[in-house]
Amino acid sequence: FKLSKGRSFRLLKGFHHARRHLTLGLSLPVLLAAAAVDREQFMAESITDYAQLHDSQDMKAKMELLVLRIQKEFCEALEAEETSGAKFKVDRWKRKNEKDGGGITCVMEGGEVLERAAVNVTVMRAPLNPKLQESMRARGKILPADREFEFFAAGVSSVIHPCNPHVPTYHFNLRYFEVQDQHGENRHSWFGGGADLTPYYLETEDVVLFHKTLKQACDRHGTHRYPLYKRDCDQYFHNTARDERRGVGGIFFDDLESPDPTTEFNFIRDCADAIIPSYLPIVKRRKHEKFTEAQRDWQLLRRGRYVEFNLVYDRGTKFGFATPGARIESVLVSLPLYAKWSYKHTPEVGSPEYKLTEILKNPKDWV
Amino acid sequence: FKLSKGRSFRLLKGFHHARRHLTLGLSLPVLLAAAAVDREQFMAESITDYAQLHDSQDMKAKMELLVLRIQKEFCEALEAEETSGAKFKVDRWKRKNEKDGGGITCVMEGGEVLERAAVNVTVMRAPLNPKLQESMRARGKILPADREFEFFAAGVSSVIHPCNPHVPTYHFNLRYFEVQDQHGENRHSWFGGGADLTPYYLETEDVVLFHKTLKQACDRHGTHRYPLYKRDCDQYFHNTARDERRGVGGIFFDDLESPDPTTEFNFIRDCADAIIPSYLPIVKRRKHEKFTEAQRDWQLLRRGRYVEFNLVYDRGTKFGFATPGARIESVLVSLPLYAKWSYKHTPEVGSPEYKLTEILKNPKDWV
Repeated sequence: FKLSKGRSFRLLKGFHHARRHLTLGLSLPVLLAAAAVDREQFMAESITDYAQLHDSQDMKAKMELLVLRIQKEFCEALEAEETSGAKFKVDRWKRKNEKDGGGITCVMEGGEVLERAAVNVTVMRAPLNPKLQESMRARGKILPADREFEFFAAGVSSVIHPCNPHVPTYHFNLRYFEVQDQHGENRHSWFGGGADLTPYYLETEDVVLFHKTLKQACDRHGTHRYPLYKRDCDQYFHNTARDERRGVGGIFFDDLESPDPTTEFNFIRDCADAIIPSYLPIVKRRKHEKFTEAQRDWQLLRRGRYVEFNLVYDRGTKFGFATPGARIESVLVSLPLYAKWSYKHTPEVGSPEYKLTEILKNPKDWV
Repeated sequence: FKLSKGRSFRLLKGFHHARRHLTLGLSLPVLLAAAAVDREQFMAESITDYAQLHDSQDMKAKMELLVLRIQKEFCEALEAEETSGAKFKVDRWKRKNEKDGGGITCVMEGGEVLERAAVNVTVMRAPLNPKLQESMRARGKILPADREFEFFAAGVSSVIHPCNPHVPTYHFNLRYFEVQDQHGENRHSWFGGGADLTPYYLETEDVVLFHKTLKQACDRHGTHRYPLYKRDCDQYFHNTARDERRGVGGIFFDDLESPDPTTEFNFIRDCADAIIPSYLPIVKRRKHEKFTEAQRDWQLLRRGRYVEFNLVYDRGTKFGFATPGARIESVLVSLPLYAKWSYKHTPEVGSPEYKLTEILKNPKDWV
């Protein structure tokens, strides 16, 4: 293979780790090979050194590998639909202190199919400040007040805003958390995440495909999951001031703690593998549909509501803002390229726009 | 005068009050005349019956009359600049229980000079729910936990988003609060408000005119006011995640409590009278300036920041959301017609856009 400047640097880094790992009985050539393949495998070099990840059964490492794989697969599937030939821009960033982790933000803006699309990976550790502690206590975590806590988080988060009003906005997020106090005690670890769809025009077959695909992934891990997570999703994406949902729901779950974390990890992995089949068929069949200026206008108004939800209600956004050294641009890639507000805009009774708002006010079962 | 359906209804209402007030020695013809003139005097019928307002020395009534007058004057001054001939749409609304008050929302959208402009009056009373109590306690109000409280609020609030990127966005708000417990005890009353300017391109003469006009109004009530309120304004309009101000500041004040409320009312009145001279000259001289598509794009990106500030930080918006029976459309008329987000958009060093961002990061003194 060709040795670019970046690669030779990474090989050099590989050497350091090789030296460290040699004592663990790993051979130098294996590590060099591992360091060399990761850029082809993922959107960018892993946040934790790949050699360490590759060789670990630690849940933190397993989750980082999963989110990196899904990021790459989803970005490539979307790029294949983008008729302009535009590709995701890859922005790999580190936190101030490198050992605190970082992320890989992949963004595409102004495409012909994708107006604004982002697929982000974050792998980080940080002190659990009082604001974050409070939000975790509110969800039942036991965090004694006399301790200091640190958390680890690995996750992938994505929002896709297509150009065509007939293609829904898509969001998914999968995350793994570990919290422990300064003595390594009071440990908690859990998974969270979900996926939800925000159409501008209601196409039952799209919504059913989306829900069905997620339900199949859930059902493999117990038939109790989908109904529970579907209900929680409708509850979570609720703009209370407007008494309407952000979209047609999907699944939402948090605090998945199990005596054997592998059980939950396997569920998360199946969710991750359901992302592409739950959305890409919709993009494929709708991206060339004709639309009017009035339909574009309606899409922009609904995107205004998306902005409202994300900035006023979304826990993920609040968490992003509250994180020490918050990376605001990565948090706010969830927002659309354009949004609109208009005083008391109300669609005509019986119109397609009206039909959507009725569903947003009264969520229903799709499978 | 012609008797429209609305008018005859109001005359009828006038009769009721007339009967009640006759015992106070007021003559019937005077009251009828008062009820008849208010639609010409204000944008819509006052929230409290005009006859009662007109005749009262109560601060609640004085404040309602002030905000109604300012709403009318500001709307008319803006309409005079609007080349399309568009006028403000007037939406008078009442809370579920009429005696709890209501408001007058005046909105113009899609004009040639004004892209989205709103001037709102609210006059209401409501129970002070725990969320609102907490925010008041945080600002030093003594509200014993074992009581139930009610508040009265009268205010005017306005945000003007012009079409031309060379005309700044303008915001002002003036409000009067009374809080008391269920026994009419633990009473507090105070004034708050301010005005601030959000330019897209920095024109020193505009910013100086704006600040100077407000300073003159402040100085008439003590030279300590302007420096204090100017500093508080820079502090308040701080997007902490981005470490930048919303605009070039202005004045901001809250909790103005004085043994003689008339002292503070007179200050508020002078602020109200400074609104038009602090902004209209800027609209006049900039509204016909040429601008490029790139400048419009920059304006939309900065409007994205305006949305961020209002939805994430602004106490006024949060208060609006937390109010029982919140009227979301009136709260969110502060948002622009269109806004834009783009990943890590950063203006070229030395460009006019860059110069603006430098000022937003490092507020300076203008007078």
